[in-house]
Amino acid sequence: GAAADNDLYINQAIVFIEDAIQYRSINHRVDSKSLGLYRWYYSRTCQWILSLTITIILALAFIEKPSSLTITSDVRYRVPAWNPPCGLTESIELLCFLVFVVDVSVKSYLIGWEEFWKNKWLMAYILTLIVSLADWIVSLSFFCTEEVRIRRILRPFFLLQNSSMMKKTLKSINSTLPEMASVVLLLAVHLSLFTMFAMLLFARTKDGQQDKEWVRYFRNLPDSLTSLLVLLTTANNPDVMIPAYSKNRAYSIFFILFTVLGNLFLMNLLTAIIYNQFRGYLLKSVQSSLFRRRLGIRAAFEVLSSLKETHAQQSYVSVEALLRVVQKVEMDSRCRQAIMRSLKTWCSCDKLSAAQFQKLFEELDKDAIKQHPPSPEYQSHFMQKMQFAFGHPYFGYLGNVVALANIVSICVVLVMDADKQPSERDDFFLGAINCFFILYYLLEMFLKILAMGLKRYLSYPSNRFDGLLTVILLVLEIATFAVYGFPHPGWRPELMGLLSLWDMVRLVNMLIVFRFLRIIPNMKFMALVVTTLLDLVKNLRAFAGILVVVFYAFALTGIMLFRGAVVPLGNSRIRCDFFFCFVCFGFLFQTSFYINKVIVISFKEKRDIMALFGHFQAEDIYHLLHLLSVNLICRWAKIYFVAWWLISSVIWVNLFVALLLENFIHKWDRRCHREPVSDIEYQRTVELMFR
Amino acid sequence: GAAADNDLYINQAIVFIEDAIQYRSINHRVDSKSLGLYRWYYSRTCQWILSLTITIILALAFIEKPSSLTITSDVRYRVPAWNPPCGLTESIELLCFLVFVVDVSVKSYLIGWEEFWKNKWLMAYILTLIVSLADWIVSLSFFCTEEVRIRRILRPFFLLQNSSMMKKTLKSINSTLPEMASVVLLLAVHLSLFTMFAMLLFARTKDGQQDKEWVRYFRNLPDSLTSLLVLLTTANNPDVMIPAYSKNRAYSIFFILFTVLGNLFLMNLLTAIIYNQFRGYLLKSVQSSLFRRRLGIRAAFEVLSSLKETHAQQSYVSVEALLRVVQKVEMDSRCRQAIMRSLKTWCSCDKLSAAQFQKLFEELDKDAIKQHPPSPEYQSHFMQKMQFAFGHPYFGYLGNVVALANIVSICVVLVMDADKQPSERDDFFLGAINCFFILYYLLEMFLKILAMGLKRYLSYPSNRFDGLLTVILLVLEIATFAVYGFPHPGWRPELMGLLSLWDMVRLVNMLIVFRFLRIIPNMKFMALVVTTLLDLVKNLRAFAGILVVVFYAFALTGIMLFRGAVVPLGNSRIRCDFFFCFVCFGFLFQTSFYINKVIVISFKEKRDIMALFGHFQAEDIYHLLHLLSVNLICRWAKIYFVAWWLISSVIWVNLFVALLLENFIHKWDRRCHREPVSDIEYQRTVELMFR
Repeated sequence: GAAADNDLYINQAIVFIEDAIQYRSINHRVDSKSLGLYRWYYSRTCQWILSLTITIILALAFIEKPSSLTITSDVRYRVPAWNPPCGLTESIELLCFLVFVVDVSVKSYLIGWEEFWKNKWLMAYILTLIVSLADWIVSLSFFCTEEVRIRRILRPFFLLQNSSMMKKTLKSINSTLPEMASVVLLLAVHLSLFTMFAMLLFARTKDGQQDKEWVRYFRNLPDSLTSLLVLLTTANNPDVMIPAYSKNRAYSIFFILFTVLGNLFLMNLLTAIIYNQFRGYLLKSVQSSLFRRRLGIRAAFEVLSSLKETHAQQSYVSVEALLRVVQKVEMDSRCRQAIMRSLKTWCSCDKLSAAQFQKLFEELDKDAIKQHPPSPEYQSHFMQKMQFAFGHPYFGYLGNVVALANIVSICVVLVMDADKQPSERDDFFLGAINCFFILYYLLEMFLKILAMGLKRYLSYPSNRFDGLLTVILLVLEIATFAVYGFPHPGWRPELMGLLSLWDMVRLVNMLIVFRFLRIIPNMKFMALVVTTLLDLVKNLRAFAGILVVVFYAFALTGIMLFRGAVVPLGNSRIRCDFFFCFVCFGFLFQTSFYINKVIVISFKEKRDIMALFGHFQAEDIYHLLHLLSVNLICRWAKIYFVAWWLISSVIWVNLFVALLLENFIHKWDRRCHREPVSDIEYQRTVELMFR
Repeated sequence: GAAADNDLYINQAIVFIEDAIQYRSINHRVDSKSLGLYRWYYSRTCQWILSLTITIILALAFIEKPSSLTITSDVRYRVPAWNPPCGLTESIELLCFLVFVVDVSVKSYLIGWEEFWKNKWLMAYILTLIVSLADWIVSLSFFCTEEVRIRRILRPFFLLQNSSMMKKTLKSINSTLPEMASVVLLLAVHLSLFTMFAMLLFARTKDGQQDKEWVRYFRNLPDSLTSLLVLLTTANNPDVMIPAYSKNRAYSIFFILFTVLGNLFLMNLLTAIIYNQFRGYLLKSVQSSLFRRRLGIRAAFEVLSSLKETHAQQSYVSVEALLRVVQKVEMDSRCRQAIMRSLKTWCSCDKLSAAQFQKLFEELDKDAIKQHPPSPEYQSHFMQKMQFAFGHPYFGYLGNVVALANIVSICVVLVMDADKQPSERDDFFLGAINCFFILYYLLEMFLKILAMGLKRYLSYPSNRFDGLLTVILLVLEIATFAVYGFPHPGWRPELMGLLSLWDMVRLVNMLIVFRFLRIIPNMKFMALVVTTLLDLVKNLRAFAGILVVVFYAFALTGIMLFRGAVVPLGNSRIRCDFFFCFVCFGFLFQTSFYINKVIVISFKEKRDIMALFGHFQAEDIYHLLHLLSVNLICRWAKIYFVAWWLISSVIWVNLFVALLLENFIHKWDRRCHREPVSDIEYQRTVELMFR
């Protein structure tokens, strides 16, 4: 009937406005049942469950079989990691898969068949689930003894497909690929040409003394290629040229030419190309989000205007229907109030045109302007003076000065105690000043609360941080006194365990340092720098997500490939360790260290390394790395490491630099051209452009 | 009289137009005598003598006393370097100084007293000369035995002040300094905060086994600061965290946090800031050059119009006077002809207005469009067919394919011979294919000359390169046959010396590879990349000059500071060596290797290093580096190296990246927005903007 139709329209409008709020696409089923399912699916609980499931399935790697998440990584001291019985992690996995099956079915149903066939992400999702479930069945039928588990490498896909930002970023990266490929091709040509030159230059000679360069770095084609590839990462930079240079200085020209061309020109060109592609990325992203929002609002308008079933020239929406919708939409209470207020003030008529409707919802684009609660008003003259004194910014500056004094004093104590034996140290001085500073911080907090009132005090994030810090310091200090007694000359609290109570006090003291970061916004340029960094962190989530996806896949592939590749050390055979790989690879994307450590050492030098180990009595983990590498070399592991280097160190870091440049230039232009620009104004401009 | 006045005006006009051509300022004396001096000073000979003098005085460092420019850098084999007698280099220096004195006097005279007092560069020039001469006198009065020679460090100033591009670039860099300073400040805050955290975290414990991290990297404040500074250069990246990580994995969080914040965020922010400052640098530079040119032409017009001494409303210039001026101006003959032609065609009247005058000289802004001479026209039908066949691009492609085959064959031989003893090798195959390929290249060259005619053939740079290469190959091949006879199975030319004739043949073969670089312009995106790189090289000269200036000053300061800092090795005491420092420092700006190698090794580990040396029997130069470093540490040399790292690796490389980005984006925008844009058109656009 008409009432049911009306209800449906109202519901549709509600969903469309919620889509607009969340910047979602409005391409989904709109019948009554589907709308209910849709609202349920996008409810906070459901989405939270989905995120939790993804987190759980990704975290499984830390406790699964070839991993060993222990405190120490030193194989001599570490206790064997807890080995979950067969079926435990597997049943958790199955539960996660079931959630994903529900997720994919609901999603597919909601977007409808036509859209489904066009959506490659959904297809891939289903395929991944099928492969994972098949692998799971294989795993159980072998009673968890099988070595290869494909489903683990596929896991990060679940993270990827759940984030629209990451999908968008991936699309952007994808469009840069052809250009990146041409630079990488140029790089490959550069590398191969120089490799051939090197092999001709550093050929074997009859004089054994003279061909050290050949023996070490250019023995054959793979060795030469590797040496120069590592030189491209600058990891073996002067080492590789020293033997040749000591023979004839002119050889250095070859290496300098290679480095300048490859490293300075081609590598940086990659940055330029990626940045060029990402120019305007932020603006485009904002535009497309706003487009979705405007589309959602427009759809809601159309639906609501068809409610009246009047086919006038100009469609309109009744205020009463809109009020019903706004009441039911899940949105920020501040926005809802603002919309209601606007509706009441400037809409005296009971009809809204499309333009008015849009304008009403512009409130969504505005950020909340935070208002601090007022200070308490004291009657007493003395209290008013107190309030003036301690509410004044100078009192805050005094606090900063005291914190600086605190840091300087800690620094002095550290420098004085640096070379003393633990038994010689006298901690009386440090204990005494700690006591003094904590008292000051406590006093400062109380005076500020007195001057500003508790509510106003807590409305500033910096005050909340200071207050929390002061309370933690106080608790720790009281605990210290309870355990060790009051400080006196010769006072020396015992160091117990990794991080004793005493260490804790010192570390919390260090947190006071962060009070200084509050000064930064007062300095003109520093403020720009810091806000850029903070903005960057916001925009970085998608990039970080992609890094995590690649990282996870690489780490697990590494474990699978190099399982058993570790040489026996002493009497124990050590497993390849998930977290170990994780950390090593994690650092790689900054330093290309692994390329250095792993690839440079070839199988022939195994004995040298062994001798070196004997000499140094070095840490086992470091040895392991070396020994691992020695064995890896024989197994074409180079390709794996080079691929990782390319993705993490070359491409990802360049993407990061591009994003940073984009953020900074965007911010800088806004600051220079229109000084007092707020976010709202900016978004309005974008919106105008968009129309 | 009036005739003398007229001559003066004509001369002034000539000089102003020459100023315009060379983009020089017109701020100089314009009396008759000064104009003669001015033209003499800016004549090619004079400027060439000045450049030569600068080159000579800079090159002196290679033969001066503490240097040792020998072929090998291995102290065991190298012969003592030639030690010039006292007074030889000094008298060359004096001659150079005299040239500079003349230079500065003429320059000061020409710009006039008023301008002189405003010109800081000239003042600094005079001051440098005075200090240098004083130092020279001191040096001679000590009979060249004095240790400190300040004038050497001042030498690069002469290079700097002679280049207006470098002065302009320096000004740009100077304007970026405040912003760079704030990031460096942020970096310093970051470093010091984390240093204190580290010292608290990795404090000395009673258990000797547990505090390896403390012993190695965080023993005291300077050690901790150094460890983290080196971590900022990523040189000691995983090493520094391994002891702590093997104790407790959680410690890695500290290092990851430090690296991500410092290296990924702050360091890249520096790139962003420098790039932001250099945006539009190219455009501004072009604009200011064009401004100078237009000013010069306008000045010439004013001078020539005052020739007539008519005070009409509209000033004008007679064509006859202009013709006299153009005849006498030193300029490109192509431009002169173009201007004469324009004068004759579109100026039927004998008067030129200011606008017409400017338009006439726009010819200067245009680049020559090179026209290749026509192919010869053959009468014979057969020759015409030949011409069609060998003038066709496909014939060029065939040549590339043959060159590829050549490279592949060399590669195959190299791979096959890689592990063979020199005595086992059979060079017959390589000799035979070399012979074949050289014959082909020869044939190709002759056929191309036949098809295109010699003039047309030589008008293409790629053909000139190919032809030259072919001739060199032919000469080498004939020489090889003369020495070793024709190739036969078992043929094995002796390897003689560093680069025998045989090696030469192989190396020249390798040059054939560069024929492939001709393919690049045919590929759309590659062409952009390569032209960007070539443009970059043009724009880079000023930057490279500044690097040379800093490099030279640092290398000579290093020699002066660290003279005698080398520890005795065997029985010989080795001097610190100019070229050695040069190369080491040269590589540093890419890898921050020196920071790694020099700073990480502290005095305490001296014995370890000695033991290591015994173990490895490593090269002397490498030892020297280490031993040098061990001693340097004690002498606050860290500051020197850190300063060098900051300037070369941090600031210069970022400047380079900024310039590359600027070049690339500039080029890309031109390509995308207006497809068939020529340089002329671009310059016109700039010009329009400028008006």
